[in-house]
Amino acid sequence: MPTIFFYGPELDNEKKKELIKSFTETASKLTGVDKSAFVIYLRPSSTDNVGVGGELLRERSKRENR
Amino acid sequence: MPTIFFYGPELDNEKKKELIKSFTETASKLTGVDKSAFVIYLRPSSTDNVGVGGELLRERSKRENR
Amino acid sequence: MPTIFFYGPELDNEKKKELIKSFTETASKLTGVDKSAFVIYLRPSSTDNVGVGGELLRERSKRENR
Amino acid sequence: MPTIFFYGPELDNEKKKELIKSFTETASKLTGVDKSAFVIYLRPSSTDNVGVGGELLRERSKRENR
Amino acid sequence: MPTIFFYGPELDNEKKKELIKSFTETASKLTGVDKSAFVIYLRPSSTDNVGVGGELLRERSKRENR
Amino acid sequence: MPTIFFYGPELDNEKKKELIKSFTETASKLTGVDKSAFVIYLRPSSTDNVGVGGELLRERSKRENR
Repeated sequence: MPTIFFYGPELDNEKKKELIKSFTETASKLTGVDKSAFVIYLRPSSTDNVGVGGELLRERSKRENR
Repeated sequence: MPTIFFYGPELDNEKKKELIKSFTETASKLTGVDKSAFVIYLRPSSTDNVGVGGELLRERSKRENR
Repeated sequence: MPTIFFYGPELDNEKKKELIKSFTETASKLTGVDKSAFVIYLRPSSTDNVGVGGELLRERSKRENR
Repeated sequence: MPTIFFYGPELDNEKKKELIKSFTETASKLTGVDKSAFVIYLRPSSTDNVGVGGELLRERSKRENR
Repeated sequence: MPTIFFYGPELDNEKKKELIKSFTETASKLTGVDKSAFVIYLRPSSTDNVGVGGELLRERSKRENR
Repeated sequence: MPTIFFYGPELDNEKKKELIKSFTETASKLTGVDKSAFVIYLRPSSTDNVGVGGELLRERSKRENR
């Protein structure tokens, strides 16, 4: 039954697969719960829907990349 | 105030309405809280953003349907 | 894989069981996903950790019950 | 580390910035945690993925606006 | 219907009330949704259930306070 | 900014640390986001607040262990 939510940047398919595989193996080993019981939700968030330190992430990233 | 989040497949409109109606009635009866106070968020997740048993759900479903 | 979160008042054991059974049956029927794949998390919230309409729920309830 | 999730209507950019700025300042002041540690996720929800009082919000809003 | 989740340190009662009041007023003004429709869940997290930068927050805080 | 929620059984301290370290390293490598930006919330759930396959997890586990 363990359930994991990952809020972060959009990933390409290969990286999604690697993240899901690694998280599931690590968490299964540590909890003793069979891998088949794990569900992971990837919840991508665009930088104009995230605030960090009081600012829109999109504006902060733009400024830092200048 | 009770709030319900449903992470699952996308549903058509008639099914959304039935799910919302049934969940609200059941939960209102069991909690004793008036139906008007219930909010339900449907948060659809595509099969390439869900991992089950360490695999992307999309790949798992493809394989099972072969 | 569908996952449901229920944020609401604490329930006794019989009511928890009824809520879990009813939500799972309804959602399984509407999504076509087997019941065994459903996980429901009951996340009870005490009235001093919930705000409704800008007020702590505990104070609001106290006032309404006077 | 505090993290805030806002489930609500889609906002335009200026309002997002104002909401993020205000929530962060208020919460930083009250918790004593530096503003830089706050992350806010705006999770917009369309009215056909929300149920209120047992009804789809979209239908309820339509009826009320008649 | 808007719903806000606040994951952070435990607050005393006066601060909870102030946070709830301020968040609700700000968000009501920016969304145009009546204050009565807002629900805020405070979900306190102890420092031994949070990881920051790959470390348990409790250990990190201890080290920084030395 | 990435944020991870882990809903599962309670873990002892050493396992919490290992889970947090491993998730953060994996996700940092795959996203390219610095480890310092990751926050992980461990949200333990007792077996009498989880439903699996329409049943309370506590009852299901008891039966399976007979």
